Parts: sequence; C-alpha cells; structure tokens
Amino acid sequence: MASVRVALLGCGAVGTEVARALAAGSALLEELSQRAGAPVELVGVAVRDLAAPRHPEVDRELLTTDAAGLVRRADVVVELVGGLEPARTLLLEAMAAGASVVTGNKLLLAHSGPELEAAALAAGVEVHYEAAVAGAIPIIRPLRDSLAGDRVQRVLGIVNGTTNYVLDQMDASGADLDGAVARAQELGYAEADPTADVEGHDAAAKAALLARLAFHTPVPLSAVHREGIAGVTADDVAAAREAGLVVKLLATCERAPGGVSVRVHPALVPRSHPLAGVRGAFNAVFVEAEAAGELMFYGRGAGGRPTSSAVLGDLVTAARHRVDGVPPRSAAPTTRMPVLPVGEARTRYQVRLRVADRPGVLAAVAQVFAARGVSIETVRQTPAGGRGAAALAVTTHTAREADLAGCVGDLTGLGSVESVTSVLRVEGS
Amino acid sequence: MASVRVALLGCGAVGTEVARALAAGSALLEELSQRAGAPVELVGVAVRDLAAPRHPEVDRELLTTDAAGLVRRADVVVELVGGLEPARTLLLEAMAAGASVVTGNKLLLAHSGPELEAAALAAGVEVHYEAAVAGAIPIIRPLRDSLAGDRVQRVLGIVNGTTNYVLDQMDASGADLDGAVARAQELGYAEADPTADVEGHDAAAKAALLARLAFHTPVPLSAVHREGIAGVTADDVAAAREAGLVVKLLATCERAPGGVSVRVHPALVPRSHPLAGVRGAFNAVFVEAEAAGELMFYGRGAGGRPTSSAVLGDLVTAARHRVDGVPPRSAAPTTRMPVLPVGEARTRYQVRLRVADRPGVLAAVAQVFAARGVSIETVRQTPAGGRGAAALAVTTHTAREADLAGCVGDLTGLGSVESVTSVLRVEGS
Repeated sequence: MASVRVALLGCGAVGTEVARALAAGSALLEELSQRAGAPVELVGVAVRDLAAPRHPEVDRELLTTDAAGLVRRADVVVELVGGLEPARTLLLEAMAAGASVVTGNKLLLAHSGPELEAAALAAGVEVHYEAAVAGAIPIIRPLRDSLAGDRVQRVLGIVNGTTNYVLDQMDASGADLDGAVARAQELGYAEADPTADVEGHDAAAKAALLARLAFHTPVPLSAVHREGIAGVTADDVAAAREAGLVVKLLATCERAPGGVSVRVHPALVPRSHPLAGVRGAFNAVFVEAEAAGELMFYGRGAGGRPTSSAVLGDLVTAARHRVDGVPPRSAAPTTRMPVLPVGEARTRYQVRLRVADRPGVLAAVAQVFAARGVSIETVRQTPAGGRGAAALAVTTHTAREADLAGCVGDLTGLGSVESVTSVLRVEGS
Repeated sequence: MASVRVALLGCGAVGTEVARALAAGSALLEELSQRAGAPVELVGVAVRDLAAPRHPEVDRELLTTDAAGLVRRADVVVELVGGLEPARTLLLEAMAAGASVVTGNKLLLAHSGPELEAAALAAGVEVHYEAAVAGAIPIIRPLRDSLAGDRVQRVLGIVNGTTNYVLDQMDASGADLDGAVARAQELGYAEADPTADVEGHDAAAKAALLARLAFHTPVPLSAVHREGIAGVTADDVAAAREAGLVVKLLATCERAPGGVSVRVHPALVPRSHPLAGVRGAFNAVFVEAEAAGELMFYGRGAGGRPTSSAVLGDLVTAARHRVDGVPPRSAAPTTRMPVLPVGEARTRYQVRLRVADRPGVLAAVAQVFAARGVSIETVRQTPAGGRGAAALAVTTHTAREADLAGCVGDLTGLGSVESVTSVLRVEGS
C-alpha cells in the first residue's frame, strides 16, 4: 500500500519528539502505521537553521529550510512552528496542494481557524488540532463528538500550565508572584518572557477554541475577556487559603441568557472542587453538561513529549482518513450565539476591603451591595493590623458583573472604606 | 434532506431519557439534527409491555413490541435492552438490514464485540458504544483515536459506580459491607440483586473493553481475572485509612513483559492519587501513556440521564457519518498480545497478619518474603488486642503475583502466624 507521506514544520521541543517517534525503524512508527492502515513515512523536517544542534534520533538528512517546497511533497503536514506567519501561509499552501494538516498552534487557530477550516473543506482535506488545547489531554474529540448529543452549560479550564504552576507555588509556599515566576523559569515551566502566559493571552486563545467546540458557535478571540494573574498577591492567595479556597487562572465558557460568556481571569475555587486539586503544571478541563452532568479531563498541558502524543494521535487519524477515503466535512459552527460583553457575565464574587473599625461601617458597606441588587452570601470581619482598621471579606451570591463593578465603584467612594484590597470571582460552586 | 430514522430498543432509565431527547419538538432534537447534518427522527420504541407506565414525554404512538420489525425501518438502531439475547440477534439483523447501531451493552460487547464489528464491516455500517464504559465519561474516542499516536502503558479504572459508592461509604462512615450495600440500595445506586456489581462482573466486562481499546489487541472476557469486593471488611478499610490509603475496586489493564494483564480486584490506592478523590457513585479512568504521561477522565458512570449523553453523542456521530457517506472501517485489533494469567501480574501488595508477639517472629516473617524473592518496602507492627498477639502490615515492592501467593501460603504454615488477615494489591504508586 502507498505510504502516507508526512512533512514536519518545526523541530523544537514538540517537533523533536514527533520526529523521534517517526524515525525510520522506531517501534512506535510500526504501531502507528498499523493503526493508520498504511506505512507512515516522514519525508522532511523544515527548520530555520540546518546547522543547529539536534537530538541524535532526528535524521539530519530529512532537514530542509524549504518549508514551502516540503509541504507540496506531503499527504499530511504537521505544523509546529507556532505564531501567525509563516504558519498560516504554509498551511494554506499545504491544503491547496492536497495535504491534510495537523497543528498545535492555538494562536493561529484562534485568529484564523475559520479561514483554515474553509480552505480545508474547499480542498477536500482535514485540519486537526488536538494539541492546541491542554497539551496531551484529549479534549477536542470529547467536546466536538462525544458530547454532540448533549448541551454543554459550562466549561472551566485550567489550560495554562505556567500560571497554574505559579499560583500553586504561591499557595504551597506563600511566595509572591515574582518569586514564583522566577522559580517557574528556573524549572523551565515559564519562558524568559512570561507575558503570554502571565497576562492570559495563551489561555484566552484556548478559551476561544473551547467555547467554539462546546457551544458549536463562532467565538472570535477579540470577544474573549482576558485578565492575567499579574495582580494576584501573596495576600490574596493566603486569604483564599484561610477561607477554604484556592486561586486558579480559569478559562470560563458558559451559556448565559442571550448568548455565551467567554472569559479568562483569576478565580477563587473551593478546595473541595476537582479543579482545586490540579497541581503544578498540570491542566484540567471541567465540563458541566445538561445530561452528562460534571466531567473532568486531566493531564499534562505542555511539554514536548506530552504534546507530541496529541499531535501523533491527530496524525494517525488524518492518515487513516486518507487511507479510508473519508470525505472531509464542514467544521463550521452549526449555530450562532452572541458572545456577551463581560459586564453581562454572572458569577459570584469575593470583595476584600480595608475599612475603619467603627460602628455603622458594616451597615454602610452592606447598603452599597443592597442598592445595586447584589445579594451578600457571607461576610467575614477580622482585625487589620492595628490603627483602628478592620478587614472585611464579602462573598456575594451570583450577580451580574456590571452590578458588582458598580458596587466596587461605590465602595471606593465610601468615607469609611480605606481601600478595596481585591475583587475576585468565585467559580465552581 | 432525507431524515435519519432512529429506532430505540428498550425504554428503561436510559431509553426514557433518549426518547425524551428525541421527542418531536424537543429543542435538543433540533440541535442534534444540525450537528448531524440532517433531521433526526425517532421512528419507534420497542418495549416488552405496551401498557406499562411511561414518562409523559415518551410518545406512546411510537411504542411497539415488534423489535425485529422496527429495526428494519431504521437508519440507526439504539440498543438499550441489555443482556446477550435478544440484543445480539436484533443488532445483527439491524446491521444486515443496513442500519448502524449504538449500544451501551457492555456484556454483549465483551462477549460478542468482534462478531458485531465483523458484521458491521460486512454490512458497511458502524457500531458505536461510548455508553458501555463509564457512562457519561468520554473514554472510547480518547483511547481509540486521541491516544492512537501513543503507547498506553496502564489503565486504572473506577468503572463501577455501585461498588465505588459502597467502598466510599465504608471509608467515610466505618460501615461494614452489608450496611453500605443496603444504603446503596436505598438510594438506588445498587440493584436489589447486587451480584453483578459486587462480584466485579460488570467491571470485568468494562476492563475487557478498555484493554482492547488501549492496547489495540483482542481481550476475551474469559481472560480477565476478576475478584469482587465481597471480602472487603470494615477492618480492611480502617487499616487502609490509617496507612494513608483507600480501598477502591479497580479495573487494571497494563502492559507487562510478554503481553497484557487485565484484572479487576479491590486495591489500595494512596490518598494522594487522583483516583482516591473519586467519591460516591462517580467513575474515573486513569491512563498512563508513554508520551502523554498521566491522564484522568472523570464523571458520572451510570444513571439514565448521564448515560443518555453518551448514547446521543454516538447517535449524532452515526447519523453524521451516514449523511457524509463515511466508509465504515475495520475495528479489528491491529495487534495481538497474549493476555497473561494473573500469576504473571506484577504489582505491590499489602499483607496484614496476626502473629505471636515474641522475639524472632518478625525475622521469620521477613525470611518467608526473602526466600521467594519478594522485597519488603515497609513493615508496621502494632499491638493486636492483648493475648500476646501483634498485628503486622507488610507492604512489598513490586512483585510477581505468583511469588506473593507463595509467600502467603508459606506464612499460613508458619507456627508464629495466627492468621493472614488480608492480602490487598497496592496500585497507583
């Protein structure tokens, strides 16, 4: 049987693992070929620098700097270059030349997913991207196919391993953000420039993909509300711990009256929630569906080896579909729901305040919430380091974000409130 | 576009939920039809008793006792009758008549899976069975497709909600087995005759399916070693708790030298392991793969509503594949590995003994293990309620089951050993 020719674009951490798995004579390659139904053959690896050091199992004979030429010689193109260009152009060229594509490029998918999928359909080929969300964790097929007979209500994802490691460090050791980021950098969990992770850009791209799959509706990246963890203090983490909560950076996608809400922000999660136990650089996606109830998918969200598992799984599927002559199908969303502005989101909140410790202050604070129609669930008052001040932690019932923001504005203007120490959403309860 | 005609066999807890979802005018039906690419239409529901009480949303006009006639009028047949016959014959007839089938019948699949899959391929139709393992949890597609580019090393599954509820009750309340089973029956988590669950038959059928998917090899049900929880005592559970462990009924599927080991038995799991946190009637499947590392899939393993989610997901896939003209592919295993006898399994063990409390006893016990080449990891000796006796808990390093069984035999014959209180495997560490 004719072999399935694979072109690999990029030979970084993930690409190296894919190239090793597909090296001639690898035992795994034999198994993949059996599962694909035809011999799988790596025909080339496009790199920028032919002379750069490579893992010894990467066959240097396969290296080329001519990515555009390589994609025209392939049945399946695996893109692990990252970034928008030249990845986008190379994939469009590959598909136009008749190749199916596998990519782990969440940024490209969040920006140009519909364009790539339309191009695939037009060319009669497929686009696969399991590696783009939550690394090794199978989440694309479960959301798109396994749950296609259900109605997903909410997805809560810990989809960025770097920030989960950082927040977990802060929780476990009491470190502040800078210290935990530095530790993550030492261990290789954070990049030298951690902005994309810390500011939530990476998680936002994944949130857009998750929401699109969960709700079968288009979700442009620009519609995803994004807040990173830069503002999370050691004090926030300690206060959460005392209250039986833990701070996590969550990608939240949920149905709401009139549309869907898609947002990334730090949130307080009860320690009894399955997401609270997701430690270190692990990822997890918690799904609430109407019939299925609560589901969770847990595993490694990054790293060359784990991510290669997702890439190679997609490669086997793409190869098998070519061998079997499976007709490509439209991946276009089957419905169209508005993505709501964050002000319309509804969740619970914890507002921490530093107030004057004198009679009537609590009543004044409570009145601010009442006036905006925000219902208080719990209040905890503790002394706040002398000078006649007290710390208040107010947890609300579910409220509209815009109303809560109004409360925070009003509180700031209240004479008896020294400062609003923090405002965090509470999810998963 | 022509509609996809669906026949439902069986209208129990799961069937009722499927019938409600597919009821004419249901909002979910409209969504499912969009995702399938054609209108999905329920054309009949085969039942044994036309006069039995039904949920008001089940259209009585659709009820029929003529299952054999019904399957010939359908494009997709959903089998929720359970048991071997007439389910097997009905599905074979349905496929011969050109229908794809969706089933949640783990017993039938474990017995006749290869026959059904061969019949499907011959007829050019498909068999789907996501609901057969772990209810609502998407596990079939992840193992079969998402992990097809990886090499699964081990699957540890909590796949029977009844026994997990019972063991969790024993752990949380100190109840004995009978008390916990009675409580599970009161709450509807256990059947009036709980044998299939308690004795591990249900879990064994699921283990056979999981192992087949994980290792791409045939696994006959008869090759699955099975022990239920009938022998688990309140004392076992309490001793586990003291040692930082919890007793779970696990379906274990693992690669071993020379083949695969597939077994169901109670096991001790460290409380720090993700499976230890699976409470009540929830299910979870923990997967260790060479590249992906550790993964876990968690959710509701039973119940009409959750299981209907898996059934309806399969229905959408089956319908879409018909609409798209996707050619059926062989589901036959791509490799053939021996299923090893349980004596060849290798794991850790905890052996609890009641011994005479006098000098030299510990040395004699240790010598028994040493003579069989079983390495001891920890020993804990505690007084055992007077009369000059002591309780010993010996935890071993990984050992061959046959060697451990030899040790237990030798210990029983040792004069200073009053009794071997329990022998439990330790998994997940």
